[in-house]
Amino acid sequence: MNPMKAVLDYLKANRIRNVDELCEYLRFPSVSAQSKHAPDMKACGEWLVRHCQRIGLRADLVTTQGHPLVLATTRNPKSAAKNRKHFVVYGHYDVQPAEPFELWTTPPFEPRLEGSRLFARGASDNKGQNFAHLKAVEAYVKTGTPLPCDLTFVIEGEEEVGSKSLPAFLKARKKELACDAFVVSDTGMPAKGVPALTYGLRGIAAFEVTLHGPSRDLHSGVFGGSIENPAMALCKLIAQLRDGQGRINIPGFYDDVTPLTAYERKQMARLPFKEASYRKMLGVPKLFGERGYTFTEQRSARPTLEINGLTSGYQGEGSKTIVPAWARAKLTIRLAPDQNPKRVMQLVLKHLKRLCPPTVRLEITAGHGAEPYVVSPEGTQAQAALRALRAAFGKEPVLLREGGSIPIVNEFKRILGVDTLLLGLGLPDDNVHSPNEKFELDCFEKGQRMSALLWQELSAA
Amino acid sequence: MNPMKAVLDYLKANRIRNVDELCEYLRFPSVSAQSKHAPDMKACGEWLVRHCQRIGLRADLVTTQGHPLVLATTRNPKSAAKNRKHFVVYGHYDVQPAEPFELWTTPPFEPRLEGSRLFARGASDNKGQNFAHLKAVEAYVKTGTPLPCDLTFVIEGEEEVGSKSLPAFLKARKKELACDAFVVSDTGMPAKGVPALTYGLRGIAAFEVTLHGPSRDLHSGVFGGSIENPAMALCKLIAQLRDGQGRINIPGFYDDVTPLTAYERKQMARLPFKEASYRKMLGVPKLFGERGYTFTEQRSARPTLEINGLTSGYQGEGSKTIVPAWARAKLTIRLAPDQNPKRVMQLVLKHLKRLCPPTVRLEITAGHGAEPYVVSPEGTQAQAALRALRAAFGKEPVLLREGGSIPIVNEFKRILGVDTLLLGLGLPDDNVHSPNEKFELDCFEKGQRMSALLWQELSAA
Repeated sequence: MNPMKAVLDYLKANRIRNVDELCEYLRFPSVSAQSKHAPDMKACGEWLVRHCQRIGLRADLVTTQGHPLVLATTRNPKSAAKNRKHFVVYGHYDVQPAEPFELWTTPPFEPRLEGSRLFARGASDNKGQNFAHLKAVEAYVKTGTPLPCDLTFVIEGEEEVGSKSLPAFLKARKKELACDAFVVSDTGMPAKGVPALTYGLRGIAAFEVTLHGPSRDLHSGVFGGSIENPAMALCKLIAQLRDGQGRINIPGFYDDVTPLTAYERKQMARLPFKEASYRKMLGVPKLFGERGYTFTEQRSARPTLEINGLTSGYQGEGSKTIVPAWARAKLTIRLAPDQNPKRVMQLVLKHLKRLCPPTVRLEITAGHGAEPYVVSPEGTQAQAALRALRAAFGKEPVLLREGGSIPIVNEFKRILGVDTLLLGLGLPDDNVHSPNEKFELDCFEKGQRMSALLWQELSAA
Repeated sequence: MNPMKAVLDYLKANRIRNVDELCEYLRFPSVSAQSKHAPDMKACGEWLVRHCQRIGLRADLVTTQGHPLVLATTRNPKSAAKNRKHFVVYGHYDVQPAEPFELWTTPPFEPRLEGSRLFARGASDNKGQNFAHLKAVEAYVKTGTPLPCDLTFVIEGEEEVGSKSLPAFLKARKKELACDAFVVSDTGMPAKGVPALTYGLRGIAAFEVTLHGPSRDLHSGVFGGSIENPAMALCKLIAQLRDGQGRINIPGFYDDVTPLTAYERKQMARLPFKEASYRKMLGVPKLFGERGYTFTEQRSARPTLEINGLTSGYQGEGSKTIVPAWARAKLTIRLAPDQNPKRVMQLVLKHLKRLCPPTVRLEITAGHGAEPYVVSPEGTQAQAALRALRAAFGKEPVLLREGGSIPIVNEFKRILGVDTLLLGLGLPDDNVHSPNEKFELDCFEKGQRMSALLWQELSAA
């Protein structure tokens, strides 16, 4: 551990300077969604390129159809060692809009340190997290400690607006980006000081169901009782899609769901979440989910069918006595590994057609889909990452699954054929996407250490 | 029949003048809903009073909190015969707004005769219908034919805006309006030349059901599966309110429903409605209603529970991945005689409370209610009315029930304790409340004859 001591000492010695530099990074109002900030986006990207160059990386601002992205690497193309491992760190320098400004204690782009908390838009999502990785590389370079692998950084400017240019970039640079794994710090830890590896994400299949009844809204007094009410038919149809135990009632639906292993369930049970406080946080009178699973499993590792919206007939004040012409439900299914959104949509379609009564006309519109993602937490890379987390935080890391999807992870797999290690440094109360976003210096510093140690663990694995 | 010959001959001889006078009546833009037409309302009421006086009635324009109403009578208070029967004819001189004007072939307040159809706003609803009754009285008066009964006319100016002033007027004039029955021509006939007595109306009970889940919309990826989705809970709740046979699934719901008699069902079966054309007119793929009843019975004489509106979560374009905080359904129950709206709402409330799962919070708001109405079609007054219809139209009349409610009929019963004979002269294609409203001269003329004959039949009954 002699070489690593120098790296870790360097990080410790430069604590204050690193925070100062992060503040510089945070001062750019790099809001990708607002066109008035396009010059700030460019300025932020250029600053980041210069910063990468200053710490010893080769770096370029790559133009795209949208906002530019920063590509930086430790590799010297002329003297690249063929058999060294190569990892790509992904992050993003764009941030969510800061509105409503009046809810911020201090302006979102004037970073403010309060105790150990650094307040600014983008502090946690994602500038603080990707900057931690850059600081770790800097420590290697500045202390003359040889990196055990090659590292490339892809820090894009369109994550908050759907990463539209990323797939084309990944395809165009397929050779340069060929690697052993992607590393992303853009997820969360369950609590301060509790390091986490996120190893699974749910997929999604969105669709809309519309039932058409009479050709126009009809007087419910004159016609009601002699024709099907499409809103009633919709309620009856949708009600059949889930049973009383919280199971989805579509034949074949669970066929491709990979059961949780005993190891995974044990790891999930370790998470510091209590049912009572979870219930209270959400404000529901009682929790409800698929029988036989904990709420942690239900919301992260089990599929679910959710109504996102209902629309039919009159929605204004008072009453309007009509049989509505149509009724619509917007639905999304969250998919568990290894369900496939297309196959699931086929099952849904077939089942709805069978259930739909002949008294109404069924219309189904399929929306976006994303595959679920899982990488074995017992695999060598995951275990290496867990060792780095343990050493950096001085605490046993937890294994997480997230209930939402992170589409880029599927792109890395699809285009480059590699897995992603999700080593998030955010905390649940970081106010990500909300006013008064903050990042804990503890997360920033331990994140730098984790990154420094990670390359050792991953290279040796 | 000698005296009646003179009356009917008078009506025939004055055919053209009667249409001319109706056109005069129709030229007033008496739109009660639009305050700019308040002067037109007053002018129309005054014209009508003068007209009543000219044909030999005592008439006054009675001021109310809203628009004035016309009160006219054949009675001479000083020489009133104590044991004569007394009937009150109700009608209204106010009309629906005529917008959108651009959809009218000719201006709505410039009556146009096209063949046997008189086009104008209010032609059928209700000026043409109440004017037919006035012309019948005129025929008695002008031919010196003694009326076999006393007649009073109440022609109000607020029917299209909810008859707000009518109950107070009925209460204030209770003595003057004490009568044997009300006669109203403001409903419809099933087809041209097919006279009809409407003897039953459904009541109504309106309510809203809201289910509250989490305290705010939640990310369906992060939380979906571990809490109840209020929209799903609503679908499941509402779906249970009706069974697969079209019966309402609320304990005790049918307890007070008076079954249709064999006579009524036979009369309903005589109506000239065909299932195929009815289905086509409404544009539904297949009819649906309570098993064991014809669609005519279902829509007019059997109770029904209808969803009038559904609202939950995201309703815009595309998808928004949320578990909505709440979901709401607007519902109305159409009541059959002798259900009571208050008692039914109590049953609904009790049942919903029992069905609602503990994972959501139930909120129910009761809306307006109206009692159903029915007068026996086998009673003496109904049979007398049927004889008058038969003689005037030269065709066997049909017995109708209407699926909607006519609140004033309940007021006549509640305040004055009398039944109403609904002898409508409108046709299904009269475009009532729509552009290009019309009234058939055939209905106008036969309506006058029916009215003239009605007083004979009712007085002798």
